Amino acid sequence: MGKLYAVGFGPGGYEHMTQKAIDVIQNADKVVGYTTYVEMVKPYFPDKDYVATPMMKEIDRCKMAIEMAKEDQTVAMISSGDSGIYGMAGIILELANEMKADIEIETVPGVTAASMAASVLGAPLMRDFAVVSLSDLMTPLELIMKRIECAGMGDLVLCLYNPKSKKRTDYVNQATDILLKYRDPETPVGIVRHAGRKEETSLITTLGQLKEAPVDMFSIVLIGNSETYVENGKMITPRGYEKKYGF
Amino acid sequence: MGKLYAVGFGPGGYEHMTQKAIDVIQNADKVVGYTTYVEMVKPYFPDKDYVATPMMKEIDRCKMAIEMAKEDQTVAMISSGDSGIYGMAGIILELANEMKADIEIETVPGVTAASMAASVLGAPLMRDFAVVSLSDLMTPLELIMKRIECAGMGDLVLCLYNPKSKKRTDYVNQATDILLKYRDPETPVGIVRHAGRKEETSLITTLGQLKEAPVDMFSIVLIGNSETYVENGKMITPRGYEKKYGF
Repeated sequence: MGKLYAVGFGPGGYEHMTQKAIDVIQNADKVVGYTTYVEMVKPYFPDKDYVATPMMKEIDRCKMAIEMAKEDQTVAMISSGDSGIYGMAGIILELANEMKADIEIETVPGVTAASMAASVLGAPLMRDFAVVSLSDLMTPLELIMKRIECAGMGDLVLCLYNPKSKKRTDYVNQATDILLKYRDPETPVGIVRHAGRKEETSLITTLGQLKEAPVDMFSIVLIGNSETYVENGKMITPRGYEKKYGF
Repeated sequence: MGKLYAVGFGPGGYEHMTQKAIDVIQNADKVVGYTTYVEMVKPYFPDKDYVATPMMKEIDRCKMAIEMAKEDQTVAMISSGDSGIYGMAGIILELANEMKADIEIETVPGVTAASMAASVLGAPLMRDFAVVSLSDLMTPLELIMKRIECAGMGDLVLCLYNPKSKKRTDYVNQATDILLKYRDPETPVGIVRHAGRKEETSLITTLGQLKEAPVDMFSIVLIGNSETYVENGKMITPRGYEKKYGF
């Protein structure tokens, strides 16, 4: 029986790939993915047989990968970050059910962008948090903003995926206005661009300044909760040890 | 100058460690951690110099690791999952500031328990989600339950860390009651015990049955949103491709 792996290869560099992601890609008959992801992975596994498809062709790409697995091939469907968080794991399972494909499917988890961005900024995710994508391609804008509101109300640290695109330029501003109802304008906000890649840059600003900050489609935005502070250039949400036990 | 790494080694097995976590542990002068974590990692790096301290001694352990780094050693402070999510990264930065320690600190992100548990269950985290710990050791119970309420209101998939301990047996039930105000009793709930370890077990139940389900301190509980369903034994939160484009 063929096997299809949904592999999250982490932020991009070899160093943040898991041992299993490396093994699965190394041993796959076919490595399938969105062109940008294939280009990222190719330098580390130059001899593999790659099939790259452009963005927005997720369904075709998955159907193709499932067909390959049905022909008894071992297929690695790659995506950056964790394949189980806004990744390809879901659509693969959905389509395999739909196609009644008798293949084995396994998800290989990876380091998601929130984890990578947090490690660059300091330690902003030491406490309860929410992860919300600002892409309204498949979620109504109203629901997205309701979720921002809920994160604000619950004093959850908030991690925004897909904060901006060429078409969606204003959603970060809308989210900022909502959060300012619940949080101080001085609340630290970290922005990491190309987290975990060669081109990585990052900056720490405040919620009150977020509208003026450089955010684009390659950015992850991490908004602190009421306890988050910045010291020595690092964004820290204290876990509560000091408050409870003292240092 | 000494260097202190906060290393997340993932769920437990070698296969889910990142390349960097492996390299850092391999090259450290000292590997420091909670006894259980040291025991997990030792078989893969038998020749390292380990310093294990019992649970609840986080502050002492960190101070010790910082002192070692001040003496020009390279120290790997290990924890399971991602060191940046409820991990040791924060307390290390807090204490290093407090101690005015002139050392370099780097966080090495890893696969967090939510990612691992999701990969076992299917693809429940394809959409916006919240991560909440039910431990009230350092967060007031009232605030924890407010966050559960917010996750319910925002139709966020919800991932519960530390759902139960010997002392805290009723919090899962309280959370269930809150979520039942917003979600159907048939909402799928996945429970993964020892995710990513040899002893791993998992089951899928419903929100209405959660109070009767076996949950303990080694479990991660993943509660679906209004769209999550179960098919062929897998828990899936559809990303929305079918709704938008059809298959």
